Amino acid sequence: MSEDVILLAHGGGGLLTHALIRDLFLRHLDNPVLAAQEDAAVVGMPGARLAFTTDSFVVSPLFFPGGDIGRLAVCGTVNDLAMAGATPRHLGAAFIIEEGLPYATLERVVVSMAETAREAGVTVVAGDTKVVGRGGADGLFITTSGIGALPAGEALGVGRLRPGDRLLVSGPVGDHGLAVLIAREGLPLRSRLESDCAPLGGLVAALLDACPGHVRCLRDPTRGGLAATLNEWAAGAGLGMAIDEGAVPVRREVRAACEMLGLDPLHAACEGRLVAAVAPGAAERALGALRGHPLGAGAQIIGEVTAEHPGRVVLRTALGARRLLEMPAGDLLSRIC
Amino acid sequence: MSEDVILLAHGGGGLLTHALIRDLFLRHLDNPVLAAQEDAAVVGMPGARLAFTTDSFVVSPLFFPGGDIGRLAVCGTVNDLAMAGATPRHLGAAFIIEEGLPYATLERVVVSMAETAREAGVTVVAGDTKVVGRGGADGLFITTSGIGALPAGEALGVGRLRPGDRLLVSGPVGDHGLAVLIAREGLPLRSRLESDCAPLGGLVAALLDACPGHVRCLRDPTRGGLAATLNEWAAGAGLGMAIDEGAVPVRREVRAACEMLGLDPLHAACEGRLVAAVAPGAAERALGALRGHPLGAGAQIIGEVTAEHPGRVVLRTALGARRLLEMPAGDLLSRIC
Repeated sequence: MSEDVILLAHGGGGLLTHALIRDLFLRHLDNPVLAAQEDAAVVGMPGARLAFTTDSFVVSPLFFPGGDIGRLAVCGTVNDLAMAGATPRHLGAAFIIEEGLPYATLERVVVSMAETAREAGVTVVAGDTKVVGRGGADGLFITTSGIGALPAGEALGVGRLRPGDRLLVSGPVGDHGLAVLIAREGLPLRSRLESDCAPLGGLVAALLDACPGHVRCLRDPTRGGLAATLNEWAAGAGLGMAIDEGAVPVRREVRAACEMLGLDPLHAACEGRLVAAVAPGAAERALGALRGHPLGAGAQIIGEVTAEHPGRVVLRTALGARRLLEMPAGDLLSRIC
Repeated sequence: MSEDVILLAHGGGGLLTHALIRDLFLRHLDNPVLAAQEDAAVVGMPGARLAFTTDSFVVSPLFFPGGDIGRLAVCGTVNDLAMAGATPRHLGAAFIIEEGLPYATLERVVVSMAETAREAGVTVVAGDTKVVGRGGADGLFITTSGIGALPAGEALGVGRLRPGDRLLVSGPVGDHGLAVLIAREGLPLRSRLESDCAPLGGLVAALLDACPGHVRCLRDPTRGGLAATLNEWAAGAGLGMAIDEGAVPVRREVRAACEMLGLDPLHAACEGRLVAAVAPGAAERALGALRGHPLGAGAQIIGEVTAEHPGRVVLRTALGARRLLEMPAGDLLSRIC
């Protein structure tokens, strides 16, 4: 392909659109379903139930330590499927591109998506490309959607939470949010912090295999971080969440950057961590299963579900005090995913 | 909800994001799966195969005669599923919103999506909202994805096209593209032209019921219009398409506007029309089935598939001349969907 930037005509549905599909998307995301180039992908999906999800990605900058918008778009959707207890299978990817984006930038993103899809064991079977004029969008937005196969039996979900359930996180929180913020703001931190961005299908499978029937609910604490996830669970289940503040793993670099920026690390997004609620008797087994997987090596039990203070998340501090962990207001951390 | 414009914090994953979901999306798109507010929707899907598709919508302006970006986003995805021969079932909808968009504008779009989803017989079961700063996006982009149930048997597709197959369109072409262009450019046309934007699941069901086993391939001629669809089929099947130019229905207003703008109506997008290839013996039955449905009242047989001029689309003019109908280059018709 000779053009070195994306033109409006690449989104017009004609010759250049077809060239872009052939030379870029089909080349890197190659699979028979996508290659059929029908309006809709036809896929096999054994079993009577499936999980289905969609998310847009508008992260700025497009490339950051530990990842890029393409890897993020695959991981985000794969992880939403995995959190439902589903095996991620197929993705759709829709690109909104600003006229003038270097072709090489788009290619780097698509290559990263292809690599991450292989890592996650999914295929990109449907796609779309739109181009808007200069100033109409900021570089590149990607919306991924995904379908996954659900096993028989009760689905994971907030409705299954019970008092006494143990709460676990699979590793340090906030790495993604802070890595993106540091990259975007050009903060003068000598930080080697990288995004935790990773596909979690394998980690979830290991956990579910180790504790069949005992995992109640899973969620990846993305926007709004651990605080948003726990508050959503508390509100959704009408139960309380009691957290040992000192047990929540937070990297030194994340804590330092948060102090500089006046942020709470528990409000910062992860893109490769999960929060799990498991039946009390299965907590140690769950912890072992998570720690036995490369993406869960830093797992910790951080607290429990309680019938006290329903709808609220309470942190027990190292000094024995208690404070409410509130839902973030959300105005500081835009465009981190 | 007291705010009258969308703020960055509406996309932060915290309190305002939750308020937006509750007060706008859940209120208008209400259904039990969406209300569960899990990361992924869990849906039943009997049968071992399904159709899956995704498209972004960046149309400008957001509202145009006969439709708006919300109606368009539902119809576009529903129609892609219908063209595969699937029954559209569930949609995901991901919103990228520019900070400052009036809340009332977003609500009008969501209400339109809800109405169109009801008309199409689908539910919106998954969603996402991102907000980017002023200048980061042009008002509102919506990406819809969808899943549909496929009947047993061979799927419709380009691979089924055979020489002799008759080609039909379900109504006048180009209404959508020209309605949007006239609205966007403020063209001084006293035009009552409206977009054809409509969900085609019912029309496709009527066609397939009338001609079981005889419909080869369906497509909705959106970006790039009839010219793009026929060229894609010719290239994909390695066959020729022979079209009677005079048989292709084009409204007088569309023809007039195209002449003013130097456009070919066959390059202009439809969002509520289909092109069908059917076995020769079933053509009249197919035509009757289309015309018997309100959305196919203007259907016509426009030509046939041929073993001659493989890969090319040839128009026979009223005067008996022949000319190639080429794939549009696509640089004039951006942001019509």
